[in-house]
Amino acid sequence: MYVADYDVMKLVDEIQKENGTISEVYFVACGGSLIDLYSSHYFVNRESASMVSDWIPSKEFVLTPPKRLGKGSLVFICSHGGNTKETVEAADVAIEAGAFVVSYTHDDTSKCASDRYHAIVYKWEPETPQQEKPMCITYGILNELIHRQEPAYTLYEGMKDGILKCDGIIRKAMKTYQNKAWNFAEHYYQAPFLYIMSSGAAYAQAYGFAICSLQEMQWMDCCYLNTAEYFHGPFEVTDEEHLYILMMSVGKTREIDLRAKAFLEKYAKKYEIIDAADCGLETIDENCVDYFNAALFYEMSVLYRTAIQNKTGHPLDMRRYMGVVEY
Amino acid sequence: MYVADYDVMKLVDEIQKENGTISEVYFVACGGSLIDLYSSHYFVNRESASMVSDWIPSKEFVLTPPKRLGKGSLVFICSHGGNTKETVEAADVAIEAGAFVVSYTHDDTSKCASDRYHAIVYKWEPETPQQEKPMCITYGILNELIHRQEPAYTLYEGMKDGILKCDGIIRKAMKTYQNKAWNFAEHYYQAPFLYIMSSGAAYAQAYGFAICSLQEMQWMDCCYLNTAEYFHGPFEVTDEEHLYILMMSVGKTREIDLRAKAFLEKYAKKYEIIDAADCGLETIDENCVDYFNAALFYEMSVLYRTAIQNKTGHPLDMRRYMGVVEY
Repeated sequence: MYVADYDVMKLVDEIQKENGTISEVYFVACGGSLIDLYSSHYFVNRESASMVSDWIPSKEFVLTPPKRLGKGSLVFICSHGGNTKETVEAADVAIEAGAFVVSYTHDDTSKCASDRYHAIVYKWEPETPQQEKPMCITYGILNELIHRQEPAYTLYEGMKDGILKCDGIIRKAMKTYQNKAWNFAEHYYQAPFLYIMSSGAAYAQAYGFAICSLQEMQWMDCCYLNTAEYFHGPFEVTDEEHLYILMMSVGKTREIDLRAKAFLEKYAKKYEIIDAADCGLETIDENCVDYFNAALFYEMSVLYRTAIQNKTGHPLDMRRYMGVVEY
Repeated sequence: MYVADYDVMKLVDEIQKENGTISEVYFVACGGSLIDLYSSHYFVNRESASMVSDWIPSKEFVLTPPKRLGKGSLVFICSHGGNTKETVEAADVAIEAGAFVVSYTHDDTSKCASDRYHAIVYKWEPETPQQEKPMCITYGILNELIHRQEPAYTLYEGMKDGILKCDGIIRKAMKTYQNKAWNFAEHYYQAPFLYIMSSGAAYAQAYGFAICSLQEMQWMDCCYLNTAEYFHGPFEVTDEEHLYILMMSVGKTREIDLRAKAFLEKYAKKYEIIDAADCGLETIDENCVDYFNAALFYEMSVLYRTAIQNKTGHPLDMRRYMGVVEY
């Protein structure tokens, strides 16, 4: 179905009718699509008493599926183009095990849009609001499912509010950060290497900034770090020559980011702070706000990579291997 | 208790007596100690029908503990020095929630060796056999626990055999690879940057090679990748100038590694293959062998970092921040 026809209540009705009580949720995809699902994985394990979650690259899921994969499992699959081979294989592994499969794709003619799954075809235009993109659709489904499975669940209204509210907040933040992103690119577009950090539910946005926005789209070398791990090894390379981007979350893991910031202020010289606290996220319920940093940081990575592209002249869509050669 | 006094049967008796049926296992630590627990996390989710697992940096666990943490939870904590602040905090969060906490440390005077937890003090000498180190001790505990909780579990004898057998295999492999490691260091000790990849249950060994062996111990910049993700972004940087280390596993995820190898052979020029298939791991039960790549690759990272140290003259134990300044 298209997002326009998508109805969270109806989909959760179907989940419950077809599969009964859900005990495990699996998030399965590759690269950018996998990254988009990380904060939902984090959400399930931190907020649900009835379900647990795992976040698994498609080919790993195909070759070594979870032992518990079965009728009690809800599997979210995502492939933007919709024909990523490993992801389609993974969806079929899940279907054959009896799981309820929700598949996201941008292309309604692709394999992931098949009736074999519960397919949701999303739009991905500059004007598409966050609540119509996979991350927030997933929050919507999980929020409704947890609400129905767990009488003690308290985040129901807060999550709903955040899902609706985050788009406006993020659009405003993009304007606030535009000039800062241009300045970063002006100084560092030729940087031979950099580290990118974020924490908690937003950790995968450091990963995505690195592997999608820079390695894939700019052929720029970089490394991603979970800020919680920075002080347990990686910080030893820090000095005045090393370049960092630190994406600071609002919410429960903010103190991890603050500690990294204090260290960079003392021992580094080249670092860019992207701070969700400058972006108006604090109007979202404080018990839910952790989960909305990820959507903000994704859009920030788009802002920064576009600014970098404008300096490097390396088109974001240029590929030398992906979709070009056999592999 | 010391490893010498450690008895897997007795410990699992205690787990069952104090906490009954275990439904979740959490692996919680920082940096190198967290890395050591990853393959056990993978093992639980792929092989256990009665338990699920998560793998969480200590400070994340403290600030955003899993909703289900409680009496049904078994928590493995590891801190080599035994006083890592976040890890001790995490152990206490777990204890207060009613979980059964097994804490590993190398120092019997440290906080992690406290009677408050079920502490296991391990040796970490060149002659210490794998079965007395945390990774294999954890396999032993989980293997026994799954065997008792799940009548259909089939890996019991195979895992026991692998735990006993892997030390001899790994020691022999170190000799086979010594000259190769020296040659790698001779060519690349001044490399400004490299990528390190591994797959499946051994993925965290690429992470560890990067953040511990090179970033922490050699102040060398590098990035780690899950081989399953290489073709979904990161491979776009590959060319004849980029340097890679690919650790190829034996077992179910080997085909992921083989695909990456074929790509490197075609498009790269500088790459080091560390192949578990050259190392005799195939004498371990094929249904269990996936879980023994990690111990092999850890020792390989020690071999390679030592070879690099000998060329750079940068002592592996030199730190500028860790244990030196306040942070």
